[in-house]
Amino acid sequence: MERFSFAPDVAFVPPGDLLDRVTVAPLTPPISEGSLIQAAIFRFEPGGRLRRHPAGPLPQILAVLEGFGEVSGADGVDEEIQAGEAVFWHPGEEHGAKSQVGLTALIIEGESLDRLR
Amino acid sequence: MERFSFAPDVAFVPPGDLLDRVTVAPLTPPISEGSLIQAAIFRFEPGGRLRRHPAGPLPQILAVLEGFGEVSGADGVDEEIQAGEAVFWHPGEEHGAKSQVGLTALIIEGESLDRLR
Repeated sequence: MERFSFAPDVAFVPPGDLLDRVTVAPLTPPISEGSLIQAAIFRFEPGGRLRRHPAGPLPQILAVLEGFGEVSGADGVDEEIQAGEAVFWHPGEEHGAKSQVGLTALIIEGESLDRLR
Repeated sequence: MERFSFAPDVAFVPPGDLLDRVTVAPLTPPISEGSLIQAAIFRFEPGGRLRRHPAGPLPQILAVLEGFGEVSGADGVDEEIQAGEAVFWHPGEEHGAKSQVGLTALIIEGESLDRLR
């Protein structure tokens, strides 16, 4: 058994402009370093957002753990989402997320990842 | 974008005696149905436990999202764990988890899964 932390004090702000007022605390190494899947906790401060952009080549799941906000997919319509709800975004799908009050979410991406059906 | 729920009202008690006072809400289909990885939210009620047992053939991560409790690995020593902390269990490693006050955790299992390093 090996222990590690994903608490707020080890979270970081990734480079680039996709995220605004959001920190990321990874649970796994990134796909860019050879992982087959990557999972991380995204903490949106009030007003935080993941700007709309096309997803990468892998499917992904965003699962809201705390708080609430809005998510959008290919159609660009903002839909309310709260703790206990998840979305599945297809490879390449234009998507985004934001929260006025703050939100904590798990995002998992990986080859052949599917949602619960 | 497809939506689905992992809220307490869709969680279930898996068959078998490994879990006591714990419900499971999957985010993905199970490995037993061909998934390369599986992820699920485990909600431990006060007094809930995952009884000690050998892990399956795949590495796994348990990440505590809320509450606190105790986890153990191969050495059988109970170690306190709280929200923001995670453990990595190796394939086949004897392990367990329990909580007196209640705990919510994400468990991910998958081929080649590694922890953040």
